[in-house]
Amino acid sequence: MDLTGPGGAGAPSDQATIRRANLSLVLRQVSGSGPCSRSAVAAETGLNKNTVTSLVGELQARALVKEIGPRHAGAVGRPSLALVLDGAGVGALGVEVNVDYIAAYATDLAGRVLADRRVGFDALGRDPGRSIDKLAQVIGRTVADIGRLGVALAGITVAVPGLVDTSTGTVVVAPNLGWRLVPLADRLRCAAIAPDVPITVDNDANLAALAEYRCGVALGTANLIYLTGEVGVGCGIISGGRLLNGADGFAGEVGHIRVDPAGERCGCGRIGCWETKVGLAALVRMAAPDHAYGVGPPVVRDPEERLAEMEQQRAAGDPRVDAAITEVGRWLGVGAATLVNLFNPRVIVLGGYFAQLADRIIPVAQTELDQLSMRDAADRCRLTASDLGFGAASRGAAHVVIERVLSDPTTISIRNP
Amino acid sequence: MDLTGPGGAGAPSDQATIRRANLSLVLRQVSGSGPCSRSAVAAETGLNKNTVTSLVGELQARALVKEIGPRHAGAVGRPSLALVLDGAGVGALGVEVNVDYIAAYATDLAGRVLADRRVGFDALGRDPGRSIDKLAQVIGRTVADIGRLGVALAGITVAVPGLVDTSTGTVVVAPNLGWRLVPLADRLRCAAIAPDVPITVDNDANLAALAEYRCGVALGTANLIYLTGEVGVGCGIISGGRLLNGADGFAGEVGHIRVDPAGERCGCGRIGCWETKVGLAALVRMAAPDHAYGVGPPVVRDPEERLAEMEQQRAAGDPRVDAAITEVGRWLGVGAATLVNLFNPRVIVLGGYFAQLADRIIPVAQTELDQLSMRDAADRCRLTASDLGFGAASRGAAHVVIERVLSDPTTISIRNP
Repeated sequence: MDLTGPGGAGAPSDQATIRRANLSLVLRQVSGSGPCSRSAVAAETGLNKNTVTSLVGELQARALVKEIGPRHAGAVGRPSLALVLDGAGVGALGVEVNVDYIAAYATDLAGRVLADRRVGFDALGRDPGRSIDKLAQVIGRTVADIGRLGVALAGITVAVPGLVDTSTGTVVVAPNLGWRLVPLADRLRCAAIAPDVPITVDNDANLAALAEYRCGVALGTANLIYLTGEVGVGCGIISGGRLLNGADGFAGEVGHIRVDPAGERCGCGRIGCWETKVGLAALVRMAAPDHAYGVGPPVVRDPEERLAEMEQQRAAGDPRVDAAITEVGRWLGVGAATLVNLFNPRVIVLGGYFAQLADRIIPVAQTELDQLSMRDAADRCRLTASDLGFGAASRGAAHVVIERVLSDPTTISIRNP
Repeated sequence: MDLTGPGGAGAPSDQATIRRANLSLVLRQVSGSGPCSRSAVAAETGLNKNTVTSLVGELQARALVKEIGPRHAGAVGRPSLALVLDGAGVGALGVEVNVDYIAAYATDLAGRVLADRRVGFDALGRDPGRSIDKLAQVIGRTVADIGRLGVALAGITVAVPGLVDTSTGTVVVAPNLGWRLVPLADRLRCAAIAPDVPITVDNDANLAALAEYRCGVALGTANLIYLTGEVGVGCGIISGGRLLNGADGFAGEVGHIRVDPAGERCGCGRIGCWETKVGLAALVRMAAPDHAYGVGPPVVRDPEERLAEMEQQRAAGDPRVDAAITEVGRWLGVGAATLVNLFNPRVIVLGGYFAQLADRIIPVAQTELDQLSMRDAADRCRLTASDLGFGAASRGAAHVVIERVLSDPTTISIRNP
């Protein structure tokens, strides 16, 4: 139930606002359906045909919608022109900065991929300033590539593994990057890599959840949770088709919920955090105590390198590897059950190393989940592996930009005739 | 971020819809502010003055708004008439059915209390059919009283301690009532106690959370959690000004999240559920093992009777009572920390027996919460006691009805001139 009523937080419904809302409604309709006639749009949206014709005219002037055809409406009757999403000239750039890589992903409004690159680097080996310089450099190169394609960027969103004040684009704290109170959006604006292009910042797991909702294995599932296994455990929650933020944008901090009062001490100083049971460090510690991460700030190594080592160890007949994976699966199910009881999601999508070990982790975790969660909700929630790999957060970030255009097409300027 | 964009799930913005939205906008403005002029409403809503005048006219015709005054706008100038909420002829009835009582609470749109009664009964001593007959009887009597006041009911909402399919008004399961798959809304409609009056059903903790948000100690806090201590533990979550429902309306099932893998077996058959640490049965078991509830379906006794016994026991110098309350407070904080990490609420409002023991439970729980939850969010979340007592759910239920009227004033018919 939306307690704020229509118009969200009592937003005024003056003529300009209504026009914007209707432009958005028509643009979403065209982008959501296949090629469709103006009458079909009118029928679907409930707007009258003349209004639709006028709105479509404006969307065409903004190069967001175009006509194809003529298609014949039927055996008889005038041929009708079909509307499709244009937006080939409008680009959306999503960037993820993580401990050991920077990923950049860009599409135009119609979904054509304009850029998709991943650059390795070591965040902990640099001070925040040098990391941001590197980030700005990667963004700058991508923006230039997009420019050469004759596409105008509608926005840039950056995904960060930490707590973000989305209103100001400030990273409050990103432990694995060693960042605290970094005004990232401002810093990138100062770098002047993309003048006049809006830059926003959000939590990486939130954006990955959005990507799963928009283009992943759980496409269109209005109640889903994205869980990613890294050195830490990240979580993004979509509830009722909305990203759950909480009072300060800090919702979904699953890594440090206590799952075992008799458990080990976590890097955060608390006892029995979920991270100490299912984080990558925990897996490695159980599988190979001799090469384990220390407590406290984790030693940063490429996760895939770690997993490759473990597979060799397993191939060499070390039984601790399978035992460790089973134990992680069990505890993954325990924590997932808490999430199912509290959020009643339909799907929990697993990313990071969870996805890479999915065939061995999921069966164990699903069994535990089904036993521990309230039946009525649990038998409707399944664990599944993400297929977006390292691209999830940057894809989600690009979708945030597209979402802004769909919500307010007037942000895209009218082309000169 | 609302991923469905303006207009919610792509709702059409045709003229009728826009008119409804604007009627709602003006009605909310008048109901939210003190007496105000048409110009003030225009300024606040962003609607132009002529539109406001026309909308106010319609709201007057529906007897939802009236004029008072004349007040003098200032030292000079024409006296202006002020608008206030009328709605004295429109009633909202909220009813709560619980294990040992039925509560009914009704107000008119302007907030005047029309009915407020609580009737004791024993749900477990009756089969569902007889309980529903009793419920219908209480509702019927209240509806008659409201009718005698010359007030027309806009709707009835019933609060139930269980999992509810709100779309059909079916109680999926309410363990403490012994109900399973009860089509409550239909059954009450058949009882014909209030022909043509819409009847809806929802979870009691959800409705109590709504009451706290609308008229309780956390009035207006857009991110709050309501926790109620009974034989079980109930929870309602308001996130971003919305009641969190999840995929099946089962979100917030906190009672059976596992907080202690080495804990006791719960009535549900699982191990270490939060309910086994903070439920009323757990408190009594710790304070007075000799009078403890058994495992399995709880023996139903009036909670206040239980607490009174415990106070006597304490007065008689039994140290187990204070020890038990401290232990409950500690575990309340442990579970609350999980909620804070996952939902990032600003306030957690405590109801049921938690509220009755608040001065002894909250200090212990708050300390534990601050230690266990992620600092950035935790130092912004406080535990506080509800002051709505047994009336929370029925008040929230009445607010659901009022909310529907505010969202769509056209549901109230135009009075004959």
